[in-house]
Amino acid sequence: MIDSPVPTPFDPDCFQQELASLGAWIADYYRRLPELPVLSQVAPGAVRAALPDTAPETPEPFAAVLADLDRIVVPALTHWQSPNFFAYFPANASAPSMEAELVSAALGVQGMLWLTSPACTELETQVLDWLVHACGLPAAFLSAGAGGGVLQDSASSAVLCALLAAREHASGGDSNEHGYRGGLTVYGSSQAHSSLDKAVMIAGIGRRQLRKIAVDAGFALDPADLLARINADRAAGLTPAFVCATVGTTSSLACDPLPEIGRICREAGVWLHVDAAMAGSAALLPEHRALFAGLELADSYCFNPHKWLLTNFDCSCLYVARRDELTSALSISPAYLRNDATAAGAVLDYRDWQIPLGRRFRALKLWFVLRRFGLAGLRALLRRHIALAADFAGWVAADERFELVAPVTLNLVCFRYRGSDEQNQRLQRLVNDSGRLFMSHTVLNGEHVLRCCIGQGATDDTHVRAAWQQIAAAATTLNA
Amino acid sequence: MIDSPVPTPFDPDCFQQELASLGAWIADYYRRLPELPVLSQVAPGAVRAALPDTAPETPEPFAAVLADLDRIVVPALTHWQSPNFFAYFPANASAPSMEAELVSAALGVQGMLWLTSPACTELETQVLDWLVHACGLPAAFLSAGAGGGVLQDSASSAVLCALLAAREHASGGDSNEHGYRGGLTVYGSSQAHSSLDKAVMIAGIGRRQLRKIAVDAGFALDPADLLARINADRAAGLTPAFVCATVGTTSSLACDPLPEIGRICREAGVWLHVDAAMAGSAALLPEHRALFAGLELADSYCFNPHKWLLTNFDCSCLYVARRDELTSALSISPAYLRNDATAAGAVLDYRDWQIPLGRRFRALKLWFVLRRFGLAGLRALLRRHIALAADFAGWVAADERFELVAPVTLNLVCFRYRGSDEQNQRLQRLVNDSGRLFMSHTVLNGEHVLRCCIGQGATDDTHVRAAWQQIAAAATTLNA
Repeated sequence: MIDSPVPTPFDPDCFQQELASLGAWIADYYRRLPELPVLSQVAPGAVRAALPDTAPETPEPFAAVLADLDRIVVPALTHWQSPNFFAYFPANASAPSMEAELVSAALGVQGMLWLTSPACTELETQVLDWLVHACGLPAAFLSAGAGGGVLQDSASSAVLCALLAAREHASGGDSNEHGYRGGLTVYGSSQAHSSLDKAVMIAGIGRRQLRKIAVDAGFALDPADLLARINADRAAGLTPAFVCATVGTTSSLACDPLPEIGRICREAGVWLHVDAAMAGSAALLPEHRALFAGLELADSYCFNPHKWLLTNFDCSCLYVARRDELTSALSISPAYLRNDATAAGAVLDYRDWQIPLGRRFRALKLWFVLRRFGLAGLRALLRRHIALAADFAGWVAADERFELVAPVTLNLVCFRYRGSDEQNQRLQRLVNDSGRLFMSHTVLNGEHVLRCCIGQGATDDTHVRAAWQQIAAAATTLNA
Repeated sequence: MIDSPVPTPFDPDCFQQELASLGAWIADYYRRLPELPVLSQVAPGAVRAALPDTAPETPEPFAAVLADLDRIVVPALTHWQSPNFFAYFPANASAPSMEAELVSAALGVQGMLWLTSPACTELETQVLDWLVHACGLPAAFLSAGAGGGVLQDSASSAVLCALLAAREHASGGDSNEHGYRGGLTVYGSSQAHSSLDKAVMIAGIGRRQLRKIAVDAGFALDPADLLARINADRAAGLTPAFVCATVGTTSSLACDPLPEIGRICREAGVWLHVDAAMAGSAALLPEHRALFAGLELADSYCFNPHKWLLTNFDCSCLYVARRDELTSALSISPAYLRNDATAAGAVLDYRDWQIPLGRRFRALKLWFVLRRFGLAGLRALLRRHIALAADFAGWVAADERFELVAPVTLNLVCFRYRGSDEQNQRLQRLVNDSGRLFMSHTVLNGEHVLRCCIGQGATDDTHVRAAWQQIAAAATTLNA
């Protein structure tokens, strides 16, 4: 075997040259983005067929990799950053966030302990405090008291961490040591995110012990049903342990009544977690703060700046009112991680606030985004999206072939063609196959419902108007 | 309230300019890196004291943010990318990996379903297959059969996913639905990573049911003790469900005997997970393949290119021999995620292979790294690190004041000053406080042991030699 030369992992000059090419490529991608078919049109297996079966033995030039981004990758993307992307929930990116992600990758530090990079921990604590102030969140979530915030990769991981804290609390601090012994029950509305089901599975509680609470006509949790189920479970000898309320469900952006739910949880001694994954960013807007009233009764709260706050995935904020509940559920201390700063209790070690041990310097993204746009800029963008959704809802309401299916609280419009599920599915396919926009669906009241969620950075009036025209035109062809 | 203008989240021209400044800043950081004190010297609270209490209301200029990187962030970093970083395990970064991270952030796609960006799923499947070939891993881990690979954020999440699959399997597919009913037992050596303890806690199995198996003089798991514990548990009416073997423990890089462990697991019908978080990259080297013999008996396997393969965190490869075991433990299917491609079974949906729902386009990093360095380049770098560790071990062995405490299998040297724990701690502090290198410690045979792990991209003979000189000089002052 002939020895290869040892490569230079980072050559400063070469890196700057390549970065310039890459910047031009990204700029060009964003310029082309409005014209690219939003939903990828490739067949399963097409990407793999275009790739070699094995990794190259010797280095390939930068230009070859860049060319393959265009040749292989871009045609097989669903363009989440397209201004014509109206599916699911948005996954915002922005220039400052991309820049911070690059800095994070370049610094390459690990933030599992305070000691392993103090800035990584302290900047995170600080920007999470900033967001408490900016969003008018309860003071209990500030790090100055018993609570605090931490960045997770997703709302799924956040609800799992909160559930584990609640499980440990309701088990008298015994389940980590002796194993979970059963008997706990968990509650969320029938509209709660599927990550609650997954968390209940992972924690060993079991889906049968997850009570799907009834919702009202606006798809918000019915507190009377919650109370009845909690009482029935208690009467049956079970221990109600965890309620997940939602501000802005994934299906229809329904907002559960936090004050009533919070009161019930307090009286029953049940952990209340509030999931506002996308809608949480709207707490920046004083005119929408009412949706968050009652949050002071929550034990934990999560929202995702990576959805609707210009900070690219992953960046999910988890707040707890009592951080010791979280860390006693998630802490372990092997010898090789012991150090003076931790032993003295002078610092936070975020590895005890999350599932994994390692952690990136994600706070840089929020820091860059908050500083480069300012709170005023972020509010202006959120307000534009909300106004555009109101416009879209108005057009739907004015077209007698369509109907609105859920209240339009913020930036999501749930609607359907007045016809069969099959017609709505056909309409959706027509529109998505056109490549001009991408819209996803849900099921509400047993019916196939179209969702138009407005929240991408570059989406403006022209895109939303064009989307509606495309939908209206497709409806015309349905019975042709 | 005066309305602010709606900001432009991504302006192509402005982005290119800022990226050029950022590239220059990163290049300069890497040039300065060898001279920066490796372990951060700031006091707890210093970073937060330098930051404002609230987020700015209006936008700040790019230059202000960049300046604060130098003023606030850099002095409060522990420089993991320094060539003088010898602590813990390395967390490699490289130019191609940083570039791919930027592309991933810019594309901003979500890979939770094949449909939500086919390239994100298929490129991941392909590069994970590439690594099976490149590392000589068992064919059962190739996606063409019943198995396959997936990227996780960390080895912690990987072992949790594997444990959940094993729990579900050993519970007859019942624990997700009805809840975990107890009775399972888990096994790892006394040297296994703490993430195993954490996974056992999270899954509700409980630490009391985690058997810490005895190790031999080289800190490798003793198969006889494993077999005895499995038999004793079975005799006590318990169900042995999961063994975690390690190739390269965190403490001392001990390698458990996979063939014997694998045979025991097969005969007992117990899931075998193999954790080779750092050492797994050495499977690229034919001369070290013997460490991985027996891996064909494993049900799941994990190694982290983000440790020692030039791919920045997070990038952890999890392989399973039967992917349906993993997905039946982790799958949920709400209406809003249903789609034709998934329903037809024609594609992989990686959200069912992991804890969170959302996922970044992480495969780009591996793709860039494998192509830009080539397998030959990566092998050359690994060989350099291993040779440097042998040099370092030689200097330790030749200095009668010191002793080697564990076999030097690859790139980690565990050693101690022939003296008290207190003296070794003092030596470690002297060295780390000098800022010239950072070395962490562990406890082996009840004694405080120094660890020197060689694996950073830019580390060469001069850094390792200077580190040893620093250590030897500090030892001289110990009794002065």
